[in-house]
Amino acid sequence: MGEEWIRATYWVETPLSLEEAAEAIAGEQSSGTFVAVPGETAELRERHRARVESVRPLGEVDCPTLLGARYPNVAQRFRRGEVRIAFPFENVGTNLPTLLATVAGNLYELKELSGLRLVDLELPEAYGRAYAGPQFGVAGTRELTGVFDRPVIGTIVKPSVGLTPEQTARLVQELAEAGIDFIKDDELQANSPHSPFAERARAVLRAVHEHADRTGKRVMVALNITDDLDAMMRHHDLVYALGGTCVMVSLNSVGWAGVHYLRQRAALPIHGHRNGWGMWTRCELLGMEFRVYQKLWRLLGVDHLHVNGLDNKFWEPNESVVRSIRACLTPIFRDSDCAMPVVSSGQWGGQAPETYRQTQTVDLMYLAGGGIMAHPGGPASGVRAIRQAWEAAVGGIPLEEYARTHPELAEALRRFGTRE
Amino acid sequence: MGEEWIRATYWVETPLSLEEAAEAIAGEQSSGTFVAVPGETAELRERHRARVESVRPLGEVDCPTLLGARYPNVAQRFRRGEVRIAFPFENVGTNLPTLLATVAGNLYELKELSGLRLVDLELPEAYGRAYAGPQFGVAGTRELTGVFDRPVIGTIVKPSVGLTPEQTARLVQELAEAGIDFIKDDELQANSPHSPFAERARAVLRAVHEHADRTGKRVMVALNITDDLDAMMRHHDLVYALGGTCVMVSLNSVGWAGVHYLRQRAALPIHGHRNGWGMWTRCELLGMEFRVYQKLWRLLGVDHLHVNGLDNKFWEPNESVVRSIRACLTPIFRDSDCAMPVVSSGQWGGQAPETYRQTQTVDLMYLAGGGIMAHPGGPASGVRAIRQAWEAAVGGIPLEEYARTHPELAEALRRFGTRE
Repeated sequence: MGEEWIRATYWVETPLSLEEAAEAIAGEQSSGTFVAVPGETAELRERHRARVESVRPLGEVDCPTLLGARYPNVAQRFRRGEVRIAFPFENVGTNLPTLLATVAGNLYELKELSGLRLVDLELPEAYGRAYAGPQFGVAGTRELTGVFDRPVIGTIVKPSVGLTPEQTARLVQELAEAGIDFIKDDELQANSPHSPFAERARAVLRAVHEHADRTGKRVMVALNITDDLDAMMRHHDLVYALGGTCVMVSLNSVGWAGVHYLRQRAALPIHGHRNGWGMWTRCELLGMEFRVYQKLWRLLGVDHLHVNGLDNKFWEPNESVVRSIRACLTPIFRDSDCAMPVVSSGQWGGQAPETYRQTQTVDLMYLAGGGIMAHPGGPASGVRAIRQAWEAAVGGIPLEEYARTHPELAEALRRFGTRE
Repeated sequence: MGEEWIRATYWVETPLSLEEAAEAIAGEQSSGTFVAVPGETAELRERHRARVESVRPLGEVDCPTLLGARYPNVAQRFRRGEVRIAFPFENVGTNLPTLLATVAGNLYELKELSGLRLVDLELPEAYGRAYAGPQFGVAGTRELTGVFDRPVIGTIVKPSVGLTPEQTARLVQELAEAGIDFIKDDELQANSPHSPFAERARAVLRAVHEHADRTGKRVMVALNITDDLDAMMRHHDLVYALGGTCVMVSLNSVGWAGVHYLRQRAALPIHGHRNGWGMWTRCELLGMEFRVYQKLWRLLGVDHLHVNGLDNKFWEPNESVVRSIRACLTPIFRDSDCAMPVVSSGQWGGQAPETYRQTQTVDLMYLAGGGIMAHPGGPASGVRAIRQAWEAAVGGIPLEEYARTHPELAEALRRFGTRE
């Protein structure tokens, strides 16, 4: 056990040398102390001290990224670099919350740093044994939706808040008629006075079952169970009892231990919404990369993970979205621990060729709002247009060419293709 | 109910006008949508749309704080300001995780913003009824420690990791002999292979009880129960069964719903460690202010909250620490919902006069590491010196003057008083 390591890679910015900054992290986050105490021996340090494994310079800047890097006697240039630090597994064990306290805890407070971003994390096999990972993942989601060999096409209940349970159910019915595979609650709608969860779940799942009985197609609805934990479990159990096939959770609001608790008791796929993630990642030298974040949620057992989409309406650049999709589909300890990336925000099908070209996968949930609801031919044409766009993308056929024989795609190109 | 509001105040930075930025937040985080859907009526918008209540300009900058604020047709100056937005309570209900998804969710992703920081949050009375708040708080912590009319003086087990349960117990015994009131595990030490939680709890609490039987003074030890939730509950129950009087939790690693779950089942004060908080607050126009963060944890029932200390060894400036202390001791819905601020990092007593002058309170836990362990007269002298420093601070007597008749304080001043 003493031979196993947890390896964390950081981008740092510092008024010190990169080596000093790396040692500050390693010391603060393991056995480092300035005061001799009983039992602190060379042997203890040898066994428990984190080690700096590599330091790679990445340039210098004049202006510090973060507040409060205070080193009065050092010239005020700020060095950037990538450092890798190995923490003894024995310090932490397979305790994921304490793993976070170790690799993403007080080190963000260090005045030796004017920037710190956790960019990669390698864990010993013991984590793969201790944490079950996704219960459904890609294969289970395909089984439950009955969608194979193409993305699962979905949408979001809009307006985000304000619809009554019956109004929500009517919208679900209309979307089911349109041929959609998947629908999710908005993250703003959970269990509110105007749309109590139990009433909404009953009304929505009644609509799902009526449609399935009539057509054989059972739409997967991710009902947003986000709440206090006991309420979340009641919501989950109700969805399961009503024959639903998915629950949605706002990951950051529920938190690491809460989602793990749900996973251990869940009988349904967990649709993981990352709202609030911008706070973790949008300052370029703070927080963490999605590569790390998604790995931890997958270990805890999240089945679907939001990744934004190409040409989205948010801040995120396309290369970051592509990295996120690839990350979710890269095994950690086993093939089954991949999560289904949920592509959304400003999607209408026009992004399909580039998304496919850069990721070479159809193991995606592809969510569109306006791309479906605002299609000139109505929602059914919107869903068909997106399917056609993916057929073209996978076949390597330009959208314009495929549109000649596919009128819904042609209409989508005319309606959405010229948006800036 | 339709008359009640959740009010969130933000600092924003934007390439647009402040009014446009505020409306983008209000729309994204309530009923705003660009696509007409069935059931979206003027009445729904009137009832569920968030409202911009105030906009106050705070200057302009040339350089955006965050990545990805994309507005190609707008002049590239970035306006800063404070905006207050009211969200209908009816959209959310008393669902704290969904409250977070609303006031601190996708809005961090908006490309209309190059900076966003949640700086205040006012909640309707219903939150005070739905969430129990601290079970012990200031009064309960004083009862359990037997310390009144002065700060609870404490320290942290060091080295952070590496001691065996027996070594930890010997250190606790030594600190108890020194007259300390409170000891906490380091956040890096929870339930690890070299210090299994149950063994450490048994050894440490045996030392606590032996000391109490002999002297009548029962030291409060915050054992770090941070773990997966079922394990955390087992750890809590063990501490309670063994006669312990406190448990510690890494708040960010366990998460909002997990800590609430613990609080509903806890029989002991919850010592809330905020490690990782730097990520939430250290970029000046991202994340949130501690004022908001501490309020949410107190609602969920955290009894003690870390706030850093004056002249600390981390990045945080003194004025921020002072604001944090005051915030923890300002009632939200009732006097009993205050949490005990935990002052630590680089403390040795020398900061007592200024801490008291600026906060006018002794309702603090005052933690020192080196200030106790490295005192020239040993730990007992270190504890006495800190008590003397607080006596002087409260009495308005300069430390140097008080030191003339208090040799331990005099030694502390000589040893620590000249550090930069």
